[in-house]
Amino acid sequence: VPRTFKLTIAYDGTDFAGWQRQASCRTVQAAIEDALQPIEGARAVVIGAGRTDAGVHAAGQVASVRLTSAIPADELLRALNATLPEDVRVLAIDLVDERFNAQFAAKAKTYRYWILSAGVVPPALRRAVWHVPQPIDVERMRAAALSVLGRHDFAGFQAAGSDVVTTVREVLTSRVVDSAVEAAAASPVLLPLDMPPLASGRLIGYEITGTGFLRHMVRNIVGTLVDIGRSRRPIDDVAAILASRDRSRAAATAPPHGLVLWEVAY
Amino acid sequence: VPRTFKLTIAYDGTDFAGWQRQASCRTVQAAIEDALQPIEGARAVVIGAGRTDAGVHAAGQVASVRLTSAIPADELLRALNATLPEDVRVLAIDLVDERFNAQFAAKAKTYRYWILSAGVVPPALRRAVWHVPQPIDVERMRAAALSVLGRHDFAGFQAAGSDVVTTVREVLTSRVVDSAVEAAAASPVLLPLDMPPLASGRLIGYEITGTGFLRHMVRNIVGTLVDIGRSRRPIDDVAAILASRDRSRAAATAPPHGLVLWEVAY
Repeated sequence: VPRTFKLTIAYDGTDFAGWQRQASCRTVQAAIEDALQPIEGARAVVIGAGRTDAGVHAAGQVASVRLTSAIPADELLRALNATLPEDVRVLAIDLVDERFNAQFAAKAKTYRYWILSAGVVPPALRRAVWHVPQPIDVERMRAAALSVLGRHDFAGFQAAGSDVVTTVREVLTSRVVDSAVEAAAASPVLLPLDMPPLASGRLIGYEITGTGFLRHMVRNIVGTLVDIGRSRRPIDDVAAILASRDRSRAAATAPPHGLVLWEVAY
Repeated sequence: VPRTFKLTIAYDGTDFAGWQRQASCRTVQAAIEDALQPIEGARAVVIGAGRTDAGVHAAGQVASVRLTSAIPADELLRALNATLPEDVRVLAIDLVDERFNAQFAAKAKTYRYWILSAGVVPPALRRAVWHVPQPIDVERMRAAALSVLGRHDFAGFQAAGSDVVTTVREVLTSRVVDSAVEAAAASPVLLPLDMPPLASGRLIGYEITGTGFLRHMVRNIVGTLVDIGRSRRPIDDVAAILASRDRSRAAATAPPHGLVLWEVAY
């Protein structure tokens, strides 16, 4: 009898062409399916909760897979991590109801995005933060971030050329935090691990939770929020873009490397 | 009139063969000297406070350099970071007394070392932590760490084959911390940036400050502390190794990638 497993997965997206398997590209889905192959003795299809784009990271991606192999879950975890490249790790494996599908069962996803405004990017963070050389007014960003809360038609923030049935999505939380540096300075061990107290610049985090996301939606929202923080757009521009449903009105898409799929709720 | 500058430097040591310039190797000193060359119009020698080994990181390395160029310090900072590869950054530049020498003027250096005991290494931390698959008793490590405090002959902890005038050094602080995970969990933004709450395992930090260090001294102390934490050696073995002055008694050298030159005091 095949069993269904829920995999919690983290990856550094820098050297991956995204989640989804593609011919002749290094992808996370393919890495995991390839690592499962010798265990299962056949190709097993791994279904991810979110198809992250090239360069986007994950701290808590979730995937489901059905296996006929009788391997215990803890041995499966060890065997996968022994085979996988170091930039992708399976953090946990749970045996779940056989009908569990990581994509369709997901109730909400949380993404985080990191920005360093001004200053110098510490080398340890270069893969994880978008460096914006200009100063950013965090209060303007924070006010604008509230506009995406709730149920809206996000057509104005989806990737150009997308083709989905509906562009209505619900956003549950949308918040800007800039306490990372203060938290690190107050901590008995400075965190992140090898980041010194920033010589200069301001580290800004953005967190968004929603029941679903359109392609590039988080990065388009972040690009627009940063424009607002730089006073190149009015604070109410997020609301205006939502109302317009016009992608050409939003800012340029923020780069992928600042984005992390943080958590998937079921 | 030549001016002397103090440079504060951070680097990800993963892809460097250490600090010191070597023929046909990528080193941090060479990267900075090469970046200075077009500004100065001649080779300028950059003197580092500590010669970190291959793979060792820095959050606050300090270097001194004498330049005849009339470039202002803030412009020099921008020009260097525009030229340097992204895995090395100049965080600050100060104009200092012309006799300042970063190596000889250093009063104390602080190193940090990170260990993940058991668990799975989050991909974002794979360049920064030593993964020890076994459980570690942090209280045993903490007790043993006290033995290196003060003025001792550290011959037992220096790299085999070293040749220095004296192996006596003074250690000012030596402490084990394992509050990183708790601090991260308590923080409004989880830190390090893309580290999820650890699925399993324990993140352990070690910090040591001393007036000077022998080659491999920190990594040999860490290797021995970890053996003690794993109960493979008695807690008083650090004191016994110091007394013996015998390198063959200490544990294997801990790997370089867990080590960070954190700060240099003047």
